[in-house]
Amino acid sequence: MDINRRFLLVRRPLGLPVAEDFRLVEEPVPQLDEGAILVRNAYASLDPAIRGWLDDAPSYLPPVKLGDPVRATTVGRVLVSRDPQFQEGQWVLGLNAIEDVSLVRPGGFTMAIDADAVPSVTNYLSVLGAVGMTAYFGLLEVGKAQAGDTVLVSGAAGAVGSLVGQIARLKGCRTIGIAGGAEKCRRLVADYGYDAAIDYRGKDVEALSAEIGGLAPDGVNVVFENVGGAVLDATLLHLAHGARVALCGLISEYNSPDGPSGARNLWQLIVKSATISGFLVSDFLPRFAEGAGEMGSWLAHGQLRVDEHVDEGIENALPAFLRLFEGTNQGKMILKIED
Amino acid sequence: MDINRRFLLVRRPLGLPVAEDFRLVEEPVPQLDEGAILVRNAYASLDPAIRGWLDDAPSYLPPVKLGDPVRATTVGRVLVSRDPQFQEGQWVLGLNAIEDVSLVRPGGFTMAIDADAVPSVTNYLSVLGAVGMTAYFGLLEVGKAQAGDTVLVSGAAGAVGSLVGQIARLKGCRTIGIAGGAEKCRRLVADYGYDAAIDYRGKDVEALSAEIGGLAPDGVNVVFENVGGAVLDATLLHLAHGARVALCGLISEYNSPDGPSGARNLWQLIVKSATISGFLVSDFLPRFAEGAGEMGSWLAHGQLRVDEHVDEGIENALPAFLRLFEGTNQGKMILKIED
Repeated sequence: MDINRRFLLVRRPLGLPVAEDFRLVEEPVPQLDEGAILVRNAYASLDPAIRGWLDDAPSYLPPVKLGDPVRATTVGRVLVSRDPQFQEGQWVLGLNAIEDVSLVRPGGFTMAIDADAVPSVTNYLSVLGAVGMTAYFGLLEVGKAQAGDTVLVSGAAGAVGSLVGQIARLKGCRTIGIAGGAEKCRRLVADYGYDAAIDYRGKDVEALSAEIGGLAPDGVNVVFENVGGAVLDATLLHLAHGARVALCGLISEYNSPDGPSGARNLWQLIVKSATISGFLVSDFLPRFAEGAGEMGSWLAHGQLRVDEHVDEGIENALPAFLRLFEGTNQGKMILKIED
Repeated sequence: MDINRRFLLVRRPLGLPVAEDFRLVEEPVPQLDEGAILVRNAYASLDPAIRGWLDDAPSYLPPVKLGDPVRATTVGRVLVSRDPQFQEGQWVLGLNAIEDVSLVRPGGFTMAIDADAVPSVTNYLSVLGAVGMTAYFGLLEVGKAQAGDTVLVSGAAGAVGSLVGQIARLKGCRTIGIAGGAEKCRRLVADYGYDAAIDYRGKDVEALSAEIGGLAPDGVNVVFENVGGAVLDATLLHLAHGARVALCGLISEYNSPDGPSGARNLWQLIVKSATISGFLVSDFLPRFAEGAGEMGSWLAHGQLRVDEHVDEGIENALPAFLRLFEGTNQGKMILKIED
């Protein structure tokens, strides 16, 4: 192969990204420096966090530069290696980009993975990857969930949320999931074992608060927050004393041209002696083996349901990414670039 | 004495309290049940938290009922005792009300205090009372301040904030205080030993953010938040990785008829793996002796400056309380009811 298709950012999106913000180009496959490798990307993980990287705002990673391909975690095979640590043909996981071939220089976040150890190599982008570790450490370390706790999860049908509910149930918690639409709420209970589901669509803070209060009359001990906005404000009105909110994401505000909405009912933290803790899965990088070990064990015993939604073709990168904000994906959103 | 002047709540305030929300009445001194005591209140502590108790909203204490006197912590002497634990004439500290005489039934939060052990008995309403313990445990336990940390305090010239800055300095932290007006900012540095001061008056989030960033280019490790609103949103833009925000109060929103404003820049918690923890000083009640011990030692060694602002006369209860929101008090706001 000598053509490298790349999905470039050419304009910073205002609100929801549109086609004009990107350009799919064909470039020659890059030259290799000593110590570097070329990775032929098979699958890219499409995550809400990518939206943040497209803005020119200070964050935990530098913004994607205009003219650069859109950053994404990928799994792929080593095409050419000039690094003795990596053999050609070997599967690797790394923070690369939406493109056929990524040039990986030494020191980047790239690791060898065993494709034969899992039902699908894409599992390294879901349950055994950042998504799974986000759910695991966010719930258990940041949220400090304990058996007997009532755990509320927003974005509960999403890639992270669907795992959070299952881990919480496996750990002996009572689980309430919030998602958009009747079909997702059905899946929360039927597929992911949530004890109860709340459909947030068309409801304001007051209506959501009434539903949460009805399901958790003694308050919620742990909140795994993916959404923000009205969902978070309603949740804050039903914290138990000493509640922990693990703040994973605020997807409701990522595309807002009015800027972030945050949380209005922050005063509830005072009266309930409660905590909101933001976190990045990278904080737990040194403990990934521990998390992946327990998740892998549950997976092997058939105790975890893992849904992946794979759209095919780099030319479909934008509509596949937008599913995350439309809520039309069923499971971890993955883009298949090539086999 | 047989007349009991009482400062009653007769209407729930909308926004800033006004004279029509209260009525000063004269009633007979109450009859004593077996096991109860009558306390002649000498001084009442006027705290921002009282404003919350006037609303008919769920909180950590029930709302003050219409027709009841306004709840406040007081120091006073036992007038009549039918409880063998308390002798007549003895000084006590308790959660009572703004009235000449309070009837205290068994099981209430009332404790004997030693008026001779402190420069002024009012110190039990400031440095050795809830205010001092709020500063001490909020900074050291909730905010987990350590030597070398940069600590940012809002409401820094207030009763709590002025102590927070001094404790942080005594513990080896660098301190930045935010207050309203040039005179208060002068006192932050001259009287309370802050390393730097920021005047928030007339500044929006962007202007405040620029000032904080200039003084804390590597970010703030601990925030002691008393104010909320633009001050908090600007602060959130300058958190160091792993920062702790001890959320003590949100005085900027207590009188807002539009409801709470909360925090818009909550997403910064995610990118900085930072935490906002609300707390109530009552969470640390079992450890008050430990806190009062260290505070008392600093006080005895002349290492703490304690400012108290005493207004006299129960008829001045409302204007004295409103100073907290006007910012015209210089130190812990106390109402002298009688000697």
